[in-house]
Amino acid sequence: MSISFELKLNEVAAQVEDALEGLLSPTARPGETRRPARLLAAMRHAALGGGKRLRPFLTIETAALFDVAPETAMRAACALEMIHCYSLVHDDLPAMDDDDLRRGRPTVHKAYDEATAILAGDSLLTYAFDILSDPATHDDPALRCQLVRHLALAAGLGGMAGGQSLDLEAERSEKPLGFDEILEMQAMKTGALLQNAVEAGALLGQASVAQTRRLSRFGALIGAAFQIADDLLDAKGDAATLGKRAGKDAARNKATLVSMLGVDAAEQRCDSLIDEAVGALQGLELGSRTDVLIEAARFVAGRRS
Amino acid sequence: MSISFELKLNEVAAQVEDALEGLLSPTARPGETRRPARLLAAMRHAALGGGKRLRPFLTIETAALFDVAPETAMRAACALEMIHCYSLVHDDLPAMDDDDLRRGRPTVHKAYDEATAILAGDSLLTYAFDILSDPATHDDPALRCQLVRHLALAAGLGGMAGGQSLDLEAERSEKPLGFDEILEMQAMKTGALLQNAVEAGALLGQASVAQTRRLSRFGALIGAAFQIADDLLDAKGDAATLGKRAGKDAARNKATLVSMLGVDAAEQRCDSLIDEAVGALQGLELGSRTDVLIEAARFVAGRRS
Repeated sequence: MSISFELKLNEVAAQVEDALEGLLSPTARPGETRRPARLLAAMRHAALGGGKRLRPFLTIETAALFDVAPETAMRAACALEMIHCYSLVHDDLPAMDDDDLRRGRPTVHKAYDEATAILAGDSLLTYAFDILSDPATHDDPALRCQLVRHLALAAGLGGMAGGQSLDLEAERSEKPLGFDEILEMQAMKTGALLQNAVEAGALLGQASVAQTRRLSRFGALIGAAFQIADDLLDAKGDAATLGKRAGKDAARNKATLVSMLGVDAAEQRCDSLIDEAVGALQGLELGSRTDVLIEAARFVAGRRS
Repeated sequence: MSISFELKLNEVAAQVEDALEGLLSPTARPGETRRPARLLAAMRHAALGGGKRLRPFLTIETAALFDVAPETAMRAACALEMIHCYSLVHDDLPAMDDDDLRRGRPTVHKAYDEATAILAGDSLLTYAFDILSDPATHDDPALRCQLVRHLALAAGLGGMAGGQSLDLEAERSEKPLGFDEILEMQAMKTGALLQNAVEAGALLGQASVAQTRRLSRFGALIGAAFQIADDLLDAKGDAATLGKRAGKDAARNKATLVSMLGVDAAEQRCDSLIDEAVGALQGLELGSRTDVLIEAARFVAGRRS
């Protein structure tokens, strides 16, 4: 990771934090009765103060390929981050992954209570669509509708939530998932939202069909690489690096590509996914403009080191 | 309730059921990887096979005031119903109201498991916005965005989810809610979505600002009446009529207008809210066209009998 990339990532993360802070202010907007303090505090706990903000970064930097200013892409990027944060809150619940720690802090149901965590997740999820449909996000209502629709498809039954359901089912089943089933489950659970982050940038940039196809492929590939890197971290990492409990997958006898292929082959697969992702970007023929996304792809894979 | 109204209500409910059945089919659409069977089954358990479909009815009949055909309003009506169903699934969870029975059947976490119930709620919520933003719902993307935005505001932090949070907080608090606090909490928890049902119809009908104001007021008033009727049912009803556990409010020492005012005064208040709601409709000067909504308002209040 180059110093300039790291600076850029941190700079965007700080801008995202500011924007989320503004969206999660205590002041009710027209159409809201009021913002109940405890629920809002739980939403803020979930969404503020942490994370690399990788998904917003991908949206903002993909849009930037087409000269869309970061501030123009920011609201869409924040909506996506809210979906990501909601999914973490619900995944951490006792009935799901039962995690006490997230980004080195207590999870929402630990800091508050389960009911509040469920509602905070629901409210972040709902807020994402409020933001995307708001004229403040983009002048063109057709584009706003596309952002809503793409995100809903990526996050719902046939995407992220469906993937989490398949993952839980597999954990509780006698029969382990096969290789292709793991790929599909991970593409839904983790890949869909990362892919959507890139696609939202392409929508905002009004990319051509051919460009969108390449960018979408890039998103899917780094999504797959991200999941391997995450599983490698879990297998090799410790809680201090992760900010959450390590070794969970093995403890649950969870089928991952790491457990199936071994660490070395999983690392190789991760690298070759990134090479392919970089190839998809280079095919855009946008020269050095894609450098930052190439570094982002390497960063995704480099999470294991 | 007139026979013709009852027939109409049942007819619309059957159409809504059909439309929901189509939306919750096993076939994945473009943009979805696949629809995991267990998660889909839980969503179907939550959304199909029951309910008066009051919210869709209000959307469809309000749109009909402006000559919008039921089939044109149906998708928006189904989106709203999905939000309603998601809220029931999450409210029934052990961490929230801990209910085993809903519409005379096991609640989703009883029929499946808690994790699946959480994800089924999340997926219904997400699907609602997918539906509303889809060009199949309406030709005009600006109108679709308004439907998304209004629903998100009604359902989220400053609406339904916020109201549920205030309600739970009050139950767990030493200090009971005051009269105005109960009104506000109920307006958020129950009223916002019923009001949104009417407002969505007004949006679809492209009602004037003045008409929308009256319809919105009508929605808020019947929302308030609905909550009183519901609390009266709980206080007086039995599980067989309700299809869920009765006497819960008293068992939890929950502050409702019924516990605060007594049954007689609560009934009077409910009636006068309905009178006011009918007045708001009559002010539209649409003659007999508003008859069905007037009957709907009386039906809302009549749930107690």
